[in-house]
Amino acid sequence: MSAHLEFAEKNAKYAETFDKGDLPVPPAKKLLIVTCMDARIDCYKSLGLELGEAHVVRNAGGSARDAFRSILISQRLLGTREIAVFHHTNCGMQSFTAPQLRDIVKSDAQSKPDNEKDKIETTVDGMEFYEFSDLEESVRNDVKFLKENLLVLDEAEITGWVYDTANGKVRQVV
Amino acid sequence: MSAHLEFAEKNAKYAETFDKGDLPVPPAKKLLIVTCMDARIDCYKSLGLELGEAHVVRNAGGSARDAFRSILISQRLLGTREIAVFHHTNCGMQSFTAPQLRDIVKSDAQSKPDNEKDKIETTVDGMEFYEFSDLEESVRNDVKFLKENLLVLDEAEITGWVYDTANGKVRQVV
Repeated sequence: MSAHLEFAEKNAKYAETFDKGDLPVPPAKKLLIVTCMDARIDCYKSLGLELGEAHVVRNAGGSARDAFRSILISQRLLGTREIAVFHHTNCGMQSFTAPQLRDIVKSDAQSKPDNEKDKIETTVDGMEFYEFSDLEESVRNDVKFLKENLLVLDEAEITGWVYDTANGKVRQVV
Repeated sequence: MSAHLEFAEKNAKYAETFDKGDLPVPPAKKLLIVTCMDARIDCYKSLGLELGEAHVVRNAGGSARDAFRSILISQRLLGTREIAVFHHTNCGMQSFTAPQLRDIVKSDAQSKPDNEKDKIETTVDGMEFYEFSDLEESVRNDVKFLKENLLVLDEAEITGWVYDTANGKVRQVV
């Protein structure tokens, strides 16, 4: 069964007791979290954050580069002044290389018409995937990227972390 | 006080009772959620999702275009076959235009050295922000973008939704 067919019923239960309708738009803690899209991560619970306290940007790997547009909007329009970047153990981003992923996409496209195949190949060849092999190094690189980025505010406090999917623990790397 | 200084203590409590260390990497529901970074949204709670069930991609606005890299990785490497795009009421993305945001960034940079100012201006002029004015139209546009995208798998089921931050309710748009 499609997962979205359960949304209405489950959401109705959530809305029944919902009492956070008056929260302001800017995050109360002036905090932005960057973390992975991984299904095993719930940063509200794992960091004890409440609704309304932090922006949460999630993407494949928890890439700060990929999150850059969101970070700019968060800082300039909604007042966040702290960024915490989380990558995690056993991440899918450590399981492939960009050339391997490009090959998968091209191979999946073999039955498509030639003009579509060409477009698919050109697009995927031009994409960056921000995969990584060394977990802690990837966190340090992302923090470095943000600290050196001229469009990230100088006064922003930036930290880097690892979340362990095996035991739910976080550990600060930088 | 910096928000991250509380992470260790709050996370220690979470880890004490953590019992989800053996979840598989691929999301159990083969589902990927795209939603906004907005601090007032917790899609695990509002959709009744459990840890391990869905990839969650979050960015400014819940933009499917911005999420494209993550969606590709999710589908090709981790087996998701359903995408649900959520935008929400009272979104920060409806409160500005790209030219206004570019002006803010340039104005903030006035005290920087000329070479840095030039880099900042060139970068921000080249950025897309995916802001929108009509909420439902923005959802329909994002679903259309995904359905027409040759690199999104044909068999993926794609739906579009609005989350109401005033009452916690979701509503399907497409």
